Amino acid sequence: MKQQLTRIEMVMADVKEKIATVTYMPGSRLPSVRAAANSYGFSPSTIMEAYERLQIEGVIYSRPGAGFYVAESIAPLSLTESGHNLDRTIDPLWVSRQSLEPSNNVLKPGCGWLPPEWLFEEGMRRGLRHVARGDATVISEYATPLGLPPLRQLLTRRMAGLGIDAQPSQVVLTESGTQAIDLILRFLLTAGDTVVVDDPCYFNFRALLRAHRVKVIGVPYTPNGPDAEAFVATLNKHKPRLYITNAAIHNPTGATLSPSTAYQVLQLAQAAGLYIIEDDIFADFEVKPAPRLAALDGLSRVFYIGSFSKTLSASLRCGYIAAPNEWVESLLDLKVATGFGGDQLAAAVVLSALTDSGYRKHMNTIHTRLARARNQTLPKLAKLGIVPWLIPQAGMFLWCRLPDNNSATQLANNCLSQGVVLAPGNAFSQSKNAENFMRFNVAQAADARIYEVLADALN
Amino acid sequence: MKQQLTRIEMVMADVKEKIATVTYMPGSRLPSVRAAANSYGFSPSTIMEAYERLQIEGVIYSRPGAGFYVAESIAPLSLTESGHNLDRTIDPLWVSRQSLEPSNNVLKPGCGWLPPEWLFEEGMRRGLRHVARGDATVISEYATPLGLPPLRQLLTRRMAGLGIDAQPSQVVLTESGTQAIDLILRFLLTAGDTVVVDDPCYFNFRALLRAHRVKVIGVPYTPNGPDAEAFVATLNKHKPRLYITNAAIHNPTGATLSPSTAYQVLQLAQAAGLYIIEDDIFADFEVKPAPRLAALDGLSRVFYIGSFSKTLSASLRCGYIAAPNEWVESLLDLKVATGFGGDQLAAAVVLSALTDSGYRKHMNTIHTRLARARNQTLPKLAKLGIVPWLIPQAGMFLWCRLPDNNSATQLANNCLSQGVVLAPGNAFSQSKNAENFMRFNVAQAADARIYEVLADALN
Repeated sequence: MKQQLTRIEMVMADVKEKIATVTYMPGSRLPSVRAAANSYGFSPSTIMEAYERLQIEGVIYSRPGAGFYVAESIAPLSLTESGHNLDRTIDPLWVSRQSLEPSNNVLKPGCGWLPPEWLFEEGMRRGLRHVARGDATVISEYATPLGLPPLRQLLTRRMAGLGIDAQPSQVVLTESGTQAIDLILRFLLTAGDTVVVDDPCYFNFRALLRAHRVKVIGVPYTPNGPDAEAFVATLNKHKPRLYITNAAIHNPTGATLSPSTAYQVLQLAQAAGLYIIEDDIFADFEVKPAPRLAALDGLSRVFYIGSFSKTLSASLRCGYIAAPNEWVESLLDLKVATGFGGDQLAAAVVLSALTDSGYRKHMNTIHTRLARARNQTLPKLAKLGIVPWLIPQAGMFLWCRLPDNNSATQLANNCLSQGVVLAPGNAFSQSKNAENFMRFNVAQAADARIYEVLADALN
Repeated sequence: MKQQLTRIEMVMADVKEKIATVTYMPGSRLPSVRAAANSYGFSPSTIMEAYERLQIEGVIYSRPGAGFYVAESIAPLSLTESGHNLDRTIDPLWVSRQSLEPSNNVLKPGCGWLPPEWLFEEGMRRGLRHVARGDATVISEYATPLGLPPLRQLLTRRMAGLGIDAQPSQVVLTESGTQAIDLILRFLLTAGDTVVVDDPCYFNFRALLRAHRVKVIGVPYTPNGPDAEAFVATLNKHKPRLYITNAAIHNPTGATLSPSTAYQVLQLAQAAGLYIIEDDIFADFEVKPAPRLAALDGLSRVFYIGSFSKTLSASLRCGYIAAPNEWVESLLDLKVATGFGGDQLAAAVVLSALTDSGYRKHMNTIHTRLARARNQTLPKLAKLGIVPWLIPQAGMFLWCRLPDNNSATQLANNCLSQGVVLAPGNAFSQSKNAENFMRFNVAQAADARIYEVLADALN
C-alpha cells in the first residue's frame, strides 16, 4: 500500500514537472491511461488514481470519453517544488532564499557573494557623497531609456579591454545582472521554447527559466567549457532557441572556457540560429583573461551581461546588456514597459566608484584575499574528504565532490538546522546528477564552526 | 486596386493584432478563407491574399488541405505597432518613449511627471548624505527578500492612514511601481488570460499587458470610477482574471472613485473571482481622501501598489506591493528569481527622505503649485477650444476634448516636430475611441510656446 502511494505521487510529480516546463502545453491532451501505464511501467489503476488526484487539484481536467487535458488557466505561478523555509525541498531557489533571509550568526559558505567588509565600502561612500552634491538632473529626473551616458561610455571602454567591440548605443543599463538576463529572456522566448544551460550552472538561471515556463536542457560542463559532443547532440535533438552561460569564471565550477571550445560553440550556434547570453558578472575577478564569446561574435548573436554586485556593492542595483544592434530598440521598449525609467542615481554612484582612484587597488586586494582564502579552505575541506573538481585560477567558488555515500541535499538540510547555509549540487544541476557535489565560497569559509558542523553532519 | 490593397492590409493587421493579444493562440487554426470572407465582408480572394502574405512574413503557416495555422514560435517580442522615433505610430509606448528621450529645449506637457525642480531635491541630497555616512550593511549587502524593514514599517503606517490594514510582512519592496505591477502580472497571468483596464487608462498598463501577451478589455471610465453596467457585462462575457486601475487620482482623467462604485466593483470582483491591482502612486497628491479598494477588501484579492517617483525623485527606483498574505512567499520567489536582491540603498534613501522633517512641507508646496498651475492652464487651453472632461480635485492631469475635427494623433505628431511632446488620447484608450482627447500635465504647461505651437497645429 505504501509502495502504491509512492508510485501515484511519482506520476503526479512527473506530470506537474512536464506542465511546469511546458513539455505538456496548456490545453493539450495527456497520454492515455494505458499509454502512461506502459511508459511508466506502473499499473493502469496507479495512473488513473494519479490523474484523478491531479484533477482534484485543478491541474488537469477530463473530457468525458476523450481523456485528460492540461488545465488552460493554471494557478498563479509557483517556482517552488514544495513548501518554504526550513522544510523546503532543494530547488533552484533554495540557496538564494536561504542566503538572503535575515539572520544572526548564520554562516553562509554556500552563498554567492563576498563578505560585505570585502566590498568597496569607502568607494561607495565617496560615490554617494559625490552624487549628493552633484547634478540635480541625476538626483531627480527619469533616466533616458538607454541610461546614464557616461557610464555606458565607460562600459564600452572596459569591454574593449576584453576585445568586445560595443558602441555606447548598444549598451542598455538595467536594474541588475539578473534583470538584464530576464529582460532578454522575455524578449527572445515564448512559453514552450527550449533553452540550453550548462550542467552544472548558476542555480538562478534555472529559477529564472522556470519563471518563463520554458523547457531547459543541460549540457555537461567540462574544465574547458560545455562538452562539444553533447552540445551538438542537444542542438540537433531539441532545436533550442538560446544558450545561457557564464563568461570567464564559470559558476559553480570555476572553470574557464578554452579558445577552441569558444570557437566551436559559436560556430554551432551560428549554424543552428541559436542566441547566446554570456553572463560576465565575475569579469573583474579574472587574473588571466579568458576568451569571450561576445568578442569572437562581434555582438551579432551574443547578448553580453555585466553587473557590479560582486565587486562594488550588492545593495545598489545596476547591471547592463551589450546587445546586438538590431535588438536594442525593442529591448528598450520592453525595459520602459516593464520598469519605466532605470535607476539613474544608482548608475551615477557606480560610475563614481568605478572611476575612483582606489578601485584598481580594491580589486587587487580582492584577488590577493581570494587566493589566500582558497589556499586556506582547500586543506580544511580535504581533511573532511571533500575534494575540488578542479582548482580554479580565480574567483570565489570551489565545486567539490563529497566523500562517497553522502547526499549533498541531506547535508545541506542538516547543516542549515545548525546555522550553516550550504549550496548543494543539485540546485545547480538540470539533470540532478550532482547529488554528490557542493559549491563552497572560499571568501565565506574562514569560520572554524563551518568545519565542525560539516564534520558532525558527514557520514 | 488601391482599395483592394487596403482591405488586404486590414485583414493582415487584424490577424496580427489577434495573435498579439492571443485571441488566436500559437498553433491554433485560423478561420477558413470562406468564414473569414463572410465575417469581414470581403471577397475570399482578399482573405487568401492576406493569409498568403502573412505566411510569407512567417506569422502563420499552411497545412496542405487543412487550412492556416498561427506559427508556434513567434519572432522576438515586439511591443510596437510600427517603426520608431518620429515616424512611430501612436501606440501605448509612444508617450513614454518620446518623453524619456534625451532632448534639449523640448517641452513636455504630455509627460506624466513633475518638473525636476518641483521634486524633493534637498531631501534627496540629505538622504544620500545620510546613507553615505550610515550603516555598512545598507551600503554593501544584498537586501533581504522583502526589503529594508524600517521602510516597510513606515509604509504600513502610511497605509493605515488610508484605512489599509497591512502587516510589514505583507509589504514587498520592488524596483519601481511599474516593476511591482509587472511582478504581480507575471505571477497571476498566463498568456491568453484576459485583463480588464479602464478606458481610458494609464498607457503603460497597456504596454505592460502587451508584454504579457494577454487579452485586454477596456471598461468605460466615468467621473466616479468604472461604468458599473459595462463592468458587469465584461465580467460575464470575458471571465477576466484581473482588473488594473488607479486609486485616488485616476490617470489620465483625474477622476476619483466614489464609495458606492468602489463597493460595487469589489462585490463584483469577489463574485467573479477577479483579482485587482490598485495602483496608488499618486496617493500623496490627494487633497481630499478617496476610498481605496485595498481598504475595503482588507488585502484579500486586491494587490496595492505605491512608489516615490512622482514625489521624491524619478531617478532613484523604489516601489512596493502590499499583497494578500497567501501570495507573499510566491511573489518573493519570483522577485528573487527575476531580480535577486532589491535595491536596499535606494530604499534607505527613500526612508530618509520620507521621514525628513521637510517632506510634509514639500508636499504642501506641490499641492499649492499644482492648484495654481491648473488654474493658469485651464484658460489658456479654453482659448484654443480645448475643454477638460472634468476639473480634477488634485493631481497634475487634465483630460481634455479637442475642438471638433481635430485628430489627437495628428496634432501630437505635428507638435512633436515643433519640439512639443503631447499625450494623445488613443495611447490611453483600449477601444481607441479617444482620438478627440489629449492629456495635459499642468505642471509642465507653463511655457507660452506650447500654446503657440498648439494654435498653429490645430484645425
